[in-house]
Amino acid sequence: MTDGHGPVLGFVGGGQLARMSALAAAPMGVRVKVLAAPSDEGAAEVVPDVVVGRPDDPAALRSFAAQVDVLTIDHENVDHATWAELEADGVAVRPGVGTLRHSDKAFQRQEFAAAGLPVPDFLVVGADDPTAAAQVEEFAGRHGGRAVLKASRGGYDGRGVWVLDAAEAPGFLATYEGAPLVVEPLLPLEREVAVLVARRPSGEIAVWPVVETVQVDGMCDEVLAGGGEGATVLPPDLEAEALRVGARVAEVTGAVGVLAVELFVVDGAVVVNEIAPRVHNSGHLTIEGARTSQFEQHVRAVLDWPLGPTGLTAPYVVMRNVVGGASGDPRDRQALALAQVPEAHVHLYGKTSRPARKVGHVTVLGEDLDHCRARAQLAADLLAGD
Amino acid sequence: MTDGHGPVLGFVGGGQLARMSALAAAPMGVRVKVLAAPSDEGAAEVVPDVVVGRPDDPAALRSFAAQVDVLTIDHENVDHATWAELEADGVAVRPGVGTLRHSDKAFQRQEFAAAGLPVPDFLVVGADDPTAAAQVEEFAGRHGGRAVLKASRGGYDGRGVWVLDAAEAPGFLATYEGAPLVVEPLLPLEREVAVLVARRPSGEIAVWPVVETVQVDGMCDEVLAGGGEGATVLPPDLEAEALRVGARVAEVTGAVGVLAVELFVVDGAVVVNEIAPRVHNSGHLTIEGARTSQFEQHVRAVLDWPLGPTGLTAPYVVMRNVVGGASGDPRDRQALALAQVPEAHVHLYGKTSRPARKVGHVTVLGEDLDHCRARAQLAADLLAGD
Repeated sequence: MTDGHGPVLGFVGGGQLARMSALAAAPMGVRVKVLAAPSDEGAAEVVPDVVVGRPDDPAALRSFAAQVDVLTIDHENVDHATWAELEADGVAVRPGVGTLRHSDKAFQRQEFAAAGLPVPDFLVVGADDPTAAAQVEEFAGRHGGRAVLKASRGGYDGRGVWVLDAAEAPGFLATYEGAPLVVEPLLPLEREVAVLVARRPSGEIAVWPVVETVQVDGMCDEVLAGGGEGATVLPPDLEAEALRVGARVAEVTGAVGVLAVELFVVDGAVVVNEIAPRVHNSGHLTIEGARTSQFEQHVRAVLDWPLGPTGLTAPYVVMRNVVGGASGDPRDRQALALAQVPEAHVHLYGKTSRPARKVGHVTVLGEDLDHCRARAQLAADLLAGD
Repeated sequence: MTDGHGPVLGFVGGGQLARMSALAAAPMGVRVKVLAAPSDEGAAEVVPDVVVGRPDDPAALRSFAAQVDVLTIDHENVDHATWAELEADGVAVRPGVGTLRHSDKAFQRQEFAAAGLPVPDFLVVGADDPTAAAQVEEFAGRHGGRAVLKASRGGYDGRGVWVLDAAEAPGFLATYEGAPLVVEPLLPLEREVAVLVARRPSGEIAVWPVVETVQVDGMCDEVLAGGGEGATVLPPDLEAEALRVGARVAEVTGAVGVLAVELFVVDGAVVVNEIAPRVHNSGHLTIEGARTSQFEQHVRAVLDWPLGPTGLTAPYVVMRNVVGGASGDPRDRQALALAQVPEAHVHLYGKTSRPARKVGHVTVLGEDLDHCRARAQLAADLLAGD
């Protein structure tokens, strides 16, 4: 059906991020291919051109790369060695391996500290370092007697994170096996916010207004944007600082495409919590809530096209995740939800519903934050059905 | 990849309207199938589940109907007899054949006149009626010596329409073969506007603000929405009358899904020009310009789901079609266009570019109508490349 015009963009991984990106690429006349693992759900429902293969399989990755103009990612669990080889061979891998390496929390903390970016006090200890327990005890002792331990690789949505009293450290470390641990203080968080940044290979950067993220059990549950004068969820000086940190992280990591920077607000200042070198849950509200969505912007950025405006489309924008419930499937409940919340923007990812699994999100725009939050929650609850 | 949850919506025809509808259906977790003729371009790039077959082939239509929960259309050139049979068999064909019959301009004029809807003075003559020429001459004589002749079926984008002096009628009719002709006065148009209406089987109706359509050579070139107090392109009383006529047309035709009603403004009043029982070019600006797009609303309406809000998202919204030029393809020019108009919402349909063929559109939102028009034109011109 295609006559070869327009770029071909390849997504490594076929989850909801590739799905929503493909839906944003299509209107611009960008053809999308997806390399999806057999277990992936989401993108295949909307992308005719799916290549089945594992993103951590070098041969699959090389073969896929040969079929596209630009390679990008749905998730960062790609084979770094192959990614680096492709990059060295001149393939447009965006983001590059230099950016992906920052998904390792230990590497990221060390790099960011060296670049002068605000990070929490931290310590990195290896799982088999005989002095690890003593180091953690000493660190916790300096920070109120407790510490947060994070696996430097492999954790997500609250997994791979442990909060320990100093006295628990030896027992924990005696049985821990895995990636080195980043040890940090248990910070008295005022709030958590995120900055979404898009960066082109040529260096152009676009930043959306800061959003507030509300976490439940370590998983993002709700995202809020907007707020009157200057459309900010933060005081103007802190908003400016957060945006500066976001843009600087994009530069330090050499990001191409969208990058999410999650920040803690502590004692009236921001420190970097985590980053994700890709489109991110905290940016889903940009689909209807910003003049250019994170998905469209990511496509434009990785193709090195000029970036779009990032202002909000309403005074307040609220997103709430739809999490699978114990019974039924949100794809059979849309009419029910829309009957009570007709203004909800419903997004379901084509994934089989299971308890605690993110299977969609809803976004509500409006003039009043509390009203938007209540409406988004009602729609999400009706979709989840519990 | 799918586990059977959510409705399956079948589009008969695989052009850009099915394409944009599929892109709107996916976020809501609605699975889409398309019955596309081998020559169709557009939908197949974004819909994995395409059945190749001719929409005017009864067997193809019946087989396709058995695979979906609800049937709807990309264009109205479906086999009416089969459509009526499917409807009689209890298949959810939306719109039904009673609505599709109004695509026949002669039938539509007669029905609307009988229902008291405002239509121009008109006459219907058969191609082989021996008194046709005399009737047209008499009609033209009563209307300033000229008449507009429209083929009752088969015309689009200015084709199948002829403007004749009374004296030219006999010569024209001596060679004309085809569907009966609707004869109308050449009206002194003040402007052309359109009303988009969505209607559910249960009767719920939603109407978007009236838009102004700017035609060039009988083809829609530009669409404008918005305008200060009441967000109208018309004086408030005329806007209200246009909306009333639009909703009444939806009721009279028994429409289900989106219906476009094109109106002439003549002597400070509106008269119905044409209708299209489907999503329509005049509604493309609702994708970014309205709280619910015509494509999402169409999907919701044909599934009998509650309809969404239709307010504009900006003071002014302008859409301009991208028409194929003599050289090149717009899918190779996006970066060029976005460099000068980064705020443009670019929509390309995956169709091979040919002169005079609509291959995409751009939409620009803003605070100033003239500025939006200039920006949309610039983006469309840069994409067209001539």
